[in-house]
Amino acid sequence: MKLRLAPQWDVDGWLNTDRPLSLPVLKGKVIALYAFQMLCPGCIHNSVPQAQRVHDAFSRDDVAVIGLHTVFEHHEAMRRPALEAFAHEFRLGFPIGIDRHENGEGMPRTMKTYNMQGTPTLVLIDGSGMLRKQKFGHEHDLVLGAEIMSLIREKPE
Amino acid sequence: MKLRLAPQWDVDGWLNTDRPLSLPVLKGKVIALYAFQMLCPGCIHNSVPQAQRVHDAFSRDDVAVIGLHTVFEHHEAMRRPALEAFAHEFRLGFPIGIDRHENGEGMPRTMKTYNMQGTPTLVLIDGSGMLRKQKFGHEHDLVLGAEIMSLIREKPE
Amino acid sequence: MKLRLAPQWDVDGWLNTDRPLSLPVLKGKVIALYAFQMLCPGCIHNSVPQAQRVHDAFSRDDVAVIGLHTVFEHHEAMRRPALEAFAHEFRLGFPIGIDRHENGEGMPRTMKTYNMQGTPTLVLIDGSGMLRKQKFGHEHDLVLGAEIMSLIREKPE
Amino acid sequence: MKLRLAPQWDVDGWLNTDRPLSLPVLKGKVIALYAFQMLCPGCIHNSVPQAQRVHDAFSRDDVAVIGLHTVFEHHEAMRRPALEAFAHEFRLGFPIGIDRHENGEGMPRTMKTYNMQGTPTLVLIDGSGMLRKQKFGHEHDLVLGAEIMSLIREKPE
Repeated sequence: MKLRLAPQWDVDGWLNTDRPLSLPVLKGKVIALYAFQMLCPGCIHNSVPQAQRVHDAFSRDDVAVIGLHTVFEHHEAMRRPALEAFAHEFRLGFPIGIDRHENGEGMPRTMKTYNMQGTPTLVLIDGSGMLRKQKFGHEHDLVLGAEIMSLIREKPE
Repeated sequence: MKLRLAPQWDVDGWLNTDRPLSLPVLKGKVIALYAFQMLCPGCIHNSVPQAQRVHDAFSRDDVAVIGLHTVFEHHEAMRRPALEAFAHEFRLGFPIGIDRHENGEGMPRTMKTYNMQGTPTLVLIDGSGMLRKQKFGHEHDLVLGAEIMSLIREKPE
Repeated sequence: MKLRLAPQWDVDGWLNTDRPLSLPVLKGKVIALYAFQMLCPGCIHNSVPQAQRVHDAFSRDDVAVIGLHTVFEHHEAMRRPALEAFAHEFRLGFPIGIDRHENGEGMPRTMKTYNMQGTPTLVLIDGSGMLRKQKFGHEHDLVLGAEIMSLIREKPE
Repeated sequence: MKLRLAPQWDVDGWLNTDRPLSLPVLKGKVIALYAFQMLCPGCIHNSVPQAQRVHDAFSRDDVAVIGLHTVFEHHEAMRRPALEAFAHEFRLGFPIGIDRHENGEGMPRTMKTYNMQGTPTLVLIDGSGMLRKQKFGHEHDLVLGAEIMSLIREKPE
């Protein structure tokens, strides 16, 4: 695919961070963006634990793991208090943004902007803000570790 | 432990069944009762999938799997619509009762009656309504399969 | 299938037992016979660990786990010293018989007698010596636990 | 640790390669060297499958996976024909060298040269032949993927 700038996410709240996070704020870091829903089995079993592993394995100076709660179904069941309980019980330490809805229903904004097909979706953004990978489904740890390091290594000195 | 009659559960709603289920209704069947919370990691990863396996492996004439949603924390996050979304997404087919709260908070009634220490808790009840096993945490499939069959086999002809 | 007497195995050596084991010696116990090869991936990953779990979970008075090393390929690689090293390294505690070859090659005798299609194969024999189950491949723990207990429970008093 | 040149391995035979492989032959590639024994449970369950995953995930131009069969116990059980059967049954595609013994027993030469403590041991060597990592036990895929890519990226252009 042609390189293109990653679109800015649009969220209406954050967990696990004191300040709003944006592409400009994270400039210079590789971003691993995990779009998930707290009641999506593939997210719970595979992607969310992987997001936590990436958060634990790499230096915070090099890699920023961002969870993005992209609720597009069962909206009543996945409001902010539910997400907070989920993050607490699963001991998630990475920042999680809540993807913004036009009117509390339907597909949220960032999910639309990125043309995501569902959850989980993994997005890698390099230190210059370019979108480098977008994958619907699960990526193997070995491949992901290599991809993230490759992006770290190409950062401008 | 001394044999004793299993106390009746006390729920204020059901999923996956058209009629309320009770000990008298299930008399003659072995009951595998799974107390769980939808946001409890040990429940999601181990006990709830096992409940579904038991539901699939044994004849409905011999064994009744009953889920019991015993919410004692994060009440706002685990109301009925959330549980319905969870059961739908994880494709749960067994009946699930919602343990009754005095006032919408705290430890629910059946959990108290059974003196449960937390979730997940597995309870086995024989065809005569006697409480035969209560375990906080996970039981291995091999042992559980044997225990259930042992109770099936002792049913009065 | 029609019930039939389990054929006697024919081995030319044992590990993990001081005396030769046979159907008459084990009469009254349920026998879980695991035909395996030490270099068969499905055996190493699934069946041999399950055999050890069965050996650990049930009373020795009720259930006898018997390994049967049915080498039908790579004969040079799976002679007795190799099997001994394997059993030691994988900490196997159940008795293992070495299926007898006519002339050191080809398919061994017990494997032929039972018409086994390959490894792993699981055989269940009841306390009366009847062949009750024969399965090529892996059986789930939940089902196996139930089947073994069912055979235990039908033992003549 | 201080950087030092990786010692040359010393083997008396190869599987899965038509020509002997050495550090000079592989110069310019990152080498993932897996010391293992075919009857070591940790090797069979974790390291050998990981070696195959690394072999499959990276370009052969960038990374050379080398198995090293470092037999230091149960020598009779792990001679070349046994190793060939093992590699065949587990569908291993990467080259495997057989670590040389002084007299057919004891700890083999390369294992001694590298001061390995046991199996499995993972060694990473960079494109310049420097020893960059040596770990007794298992490494997580995410970390390993990152480490390998880091070494690839520092290769002289």
